[in-house]
Amino acid sequence: MGNIVVGQSGGPTAVINSSVAGVYEAAKAAGVNKVYGMVFGIQGFLEEKILDLDEYLSTQDGIELLMRTPSAFLGSCRFKMPKPEDGTQVYERIFEVMEKNDIDALFYIGGNDSMDTVKMLSDYAAAHGKKQRFVGVPKTVDNDLPVTDHCPGFGSAAKYIATSLKELIRDNAVYGDYRTAVLIVEIMGRHAGWLAAAAALAKDETCEGVDAIYLPEIVFDVDAFVDKVDALTKEKKTIVIAVSEGIKVADGRFVCELTGAGGAKDAFGHTQLSGCGVFLAQLLSSKLGVKARAVELSTLQRAATHIASLTDIEEARMAGKAAVNAALSGETGVMVTLNRVSDNPYKCETAVHDIHSIANVERNVPFNWVGEDGCSMTEEFEAYARPLIMGELVPIYENGTPKHLVRK
Amino acid sequence: MGNIVVGQSGGPTAVINSSVAGVYEAAKAAGVNKVYGMVFGIQGFLEEKILDLDEYLSTQDGIELLMRTPSAFLGSCRFKMPKPEDGTQVYERIFEVMEKNDIDALFYIGGNDSMDTVKMLSDYAAAHGKKQRFVGVPKTVDNDLPVTDHCPGFGSAAKYIATSLKELIRDNAVYGDYRTAVLIVEIMGRHAGWLAAAAALAKDETCEGVDAIYLPEIVFDVDAFVDKVDALTKEKKTIVIAVSEGIKVADGRFVCELTGAGGAKDAFGHTQLSGCGVFLAQLLSSKLGVKARAVELSTLQRAATHIASLTDIEEARMAGKAAVNAALSGETGVMVTLNRVSDNPYKCETAVHDIHSIANVERNVPFNWVGEDGCSMTEEFEAYARPLIMGELVPIYENGTPKHLVRK
Repeated sequence: MGNIVVGQSGGPTAVINSSVAGVYEAAKAAGVNKVYGMVFGIQGFLEEKILDLDEYLSTQDGIELLMRTPSAFLGSCRFKMPKPEDGTQVYERIFEVMEKNDIDALFYIGGNDSMDTVKMLSDYAAAHGKKQRFVGVPKTVDNDLPVTDHCPGFGSAAKYIATSLKELIRDNAVYGDYRTAVLIVEIMGRHAGWLAAAAALAKDETCEGVDAIYLPEIVFDVDAFVDKVDALTKEKKTIVIAVSEGIKVADGRFVCELTGAGGAKDAFGHTQLSGCGVFLAQLLSSKLGVKARAVELSTLQRAATHIASLTDIEEARMAGKAAVNAALSGETGVMVTLNRVSDNPYKCETAVHDIHSIANVERNVPFNWVGEDGCSMTEEFEAYARPLIMGELVPIYENGTPKHLVRK
Repeated sequence: MGNIVVGQSGGPTAVINSSVAGVYEAAKAAGVNKVYGMVFGIQGFLEEKILDLDEYLSTQDGIELLMRTPSAFLGSCRFKMPKPEDGTQVYERIFEVMEKNDIDALFYIGGNDSMDTVKMLSDYAAAHGKKQRFVGVPKTVDNDLPVTDHCPGFGSAAKYIATSLKELIRDNAVYGDYRTAVLIVEIMGRHAGWLAAAAALAKDETCEGVDAIYLPEIVFDVDAFVDKVDALTKEKKTIVIAVSEGIKVADGRFVCELTGAGGAKDAFGHTQLSGCGVFLAQLLSSKLGVKARAVELSTLQRAATHIASLTDIEEARMAGKAAVNAALSGETGVMVTLNRVSDNPYKCETAVHDIHSIANVERNVPFNWVGEDGCSMTEEFEAYARPLIMGELVPIYENGTPKHLVRK
C-alpha cells in the first residue's frame, strides 16, 4: 500500500487524538511510507491542506503528548458531502488529491455525519473502479453510533461528568439543612441521553449521587418535574438534578424552547438561547420559591483531556490501529466497532462493520435501562458504563498546566 | 491548653479541607486532647453540632483523603454575627458551648465575613475577660483578603481556570479559519478580579492564550468591547475572551443587569438572571452577526479538587498549622498571613496579623498589573500568580472517580 491519510471530523472529544496516534502507529509498524494528516478534515483536504505526521509523532514523546491533547489536533470540520447526483466535483477533487500524494487509504475519525462521508466516498470508489480504501473510526461523546458497543470519546466525557458531579454535589451540600439549594446540571446530548445517563456514575460509597436524571429519550413532563422536586424538598434540602440539553415535551419542542409566562426573550428581543438548565432553575424558583441554580457543563465535558479515561484512550488508539489493519487486509466501506466480549473482567475487541448499516443511524439509551420512575438509571446501565471510565493517563504538567501538542 | 475547635465558613474552595488537616496535625503534635470540628460553622456550633476529628483523621489515610476532598468537609455557613450591642445571646451561647467542651481556642477558616466573626469573638473575649483564643485562617477563591500575599483557595481555582481555558481554546479553534467562533468565558469574582486575571495563565509555549480579559476593577465600556471584538474578528476567526462575573459599566450597574433593547426577562417575566457571559455573547451575535457562545465556569472552578494546586494545598495546610501554633503561643484576634519571601525560587512563610486591619477590607487587583489596553495582564501579574498554580496532588481514584472523605 502507498501512503495513507487520516482526518478528524465533527465535534472533538478528549480522545479523538488517540485514534490519530493509533492510525499512525499501526501504519508505521506496517511499513507505510507517509502518514498524512488532513488539516480541518475533508474541508481542508479539498484544498490539499495536509501535514506529514512524522513531523510530530516520530518520537514516543510526540505520541504521549498527542494522547494528552484535547480537541482535534489536526483540526476538524462540519462538511456535508454533496450527493454524487448533484455533481461530482468534490469527489473528483478528493481522489485527485489522494492520487497526487499517492494516498491509497483514507481514515476518517468521526460520528454519524463523518460515517456518511466514509460511505459516500467508498460507494463512489466502488462505482468508479477506484482502488482507494475508506475506513471509519468511531468517535463521539454522544455515544450514539449503532453496532459498536460504545464510541471512543464517550467514556472520557462520562468520567468528567461523574467526577464533576461528585464535586458539585459536595459543593451544593455545603450549608446542609440550613439552606435549600437545588442545582440543575445541564449535560450534552441533543438526541441521545448517554451522557446525561452517565450522571448516575457519580453515585458511589461516599457520594449519594444525583436525585434525578432526565434523558431526551423520555418525554419531559414539566408539571411532573416540578412535583418531583417539590416532593424532594420535603425530604432533603440539597438537591442535584441532571438534565440532558435535549429533553423535549410531549409536543416535540425542546424544553429550552419553552417560553413560559413572559415569553423568554434575550436582552436584544430575540428568543432566549439559554439552555434548559437555566429555564428549569427559573421555573423552580418561580413555582416553588426555592433557591435554584443551573450549571451547564458545556464544551468543558468534551474538552477535559486532563481527566480522560485511560480505558477510553486505549480503545480510541486501538480503534485507529484496527482501521489501518482492516485497510491493509483489503477492507473498505467499513467502520471499526468495539465489541464487548466480557463484562467481568471488562474486555473489548475490535471488528469492522459495513458502513451502510451505520451511517445516519442513531442509537438511543434503551428504555429498559431507565428506572420505572423515568428519571433514574438501572444497574444494567451502571454495568455497561462503569468500565468505560476506568483508569487515568496523568497529564504532563509544565508551569502548572497540562502540556499539549499543537500544530506549527 | 484544653481542647480546640475548627470551623469552615463561607463559600468552599478546593483546599479549605487542607487547612482543617493542618489544624488537626499541629494540635495533635502539640498534645491537644480533643480537636473538634464545627459542623456547619458557627451556625452549627450554636446548636453544639461538633464532631471529634480523631474519628476521621487519626490515620494518615484520613488526612490524605481529606486533602483531596472538595467543598467543606465539616459543612459551612453564611452566618452574620450580631453586634454585641444588639444582644449578647449568640456570644454567650458560643462561650457556653466552648466551656462545656473545655475548648480553649477556636480556629475559623474563611474569607472576609468569617474574619469579621473572629474579630467580634476575640473582641468580646477581651472585653469580658475570657481566656479563649480566636484565630482566623484565610480562605477564599476570590483572593481578596488584605495583608496576606494571597489566599489559600485562589491558586487551585486559578489552576482550574488556566487548565480549562487551555482546553477550551483548543476546542474553540477546532474548525480554524472555516468558522468564526467567539467564546466568552465567565469567571467568578463579584468585586475583585483575581480569578478572571488568572485567565492570563492559559498562555504558554503551546497555547496562544485568551484574547482579552475584563476585570471588575476596570469600568466596562460596552461599545469599546464590541469594537475590540470586531477588530479581533478581522485578524482571526477563533476568539476566546475571559470576563469576570462582576464587570460593571460606568453608572455602576453590573453588566449582567443591563437590559439592552428588549428588556431582559426570564421565561417567567422576571429580570433575567443569567450572567454577563450570556449577555455579552448575545450582544456580539446581535451587533456583529458572529457566532458567539458563553461558558460559565460556575461553581466547578471552586469545587475541582481533582486538579488542585499542590502549592495551594500545602499552603492551606501550613496556614492551619500556623494558626494552632499562634494560639499555643498566646495569640488571639489574629489571622494567619502568607508572606512571600522569595520569588525565584518561590517561597512563602506564615505570620499572623491583627484581625482588626483585615476584617471587612477587600483587596483588588492593582491597576498597574493591568495592561495599557485595559484588558490584559502584565508580566508582574504572571510572576505573582504562576507559582501559586504549581504542582499537583494526584487524586485517589476508586471505580473511575476521585475518592472523597465524607461525614458519617
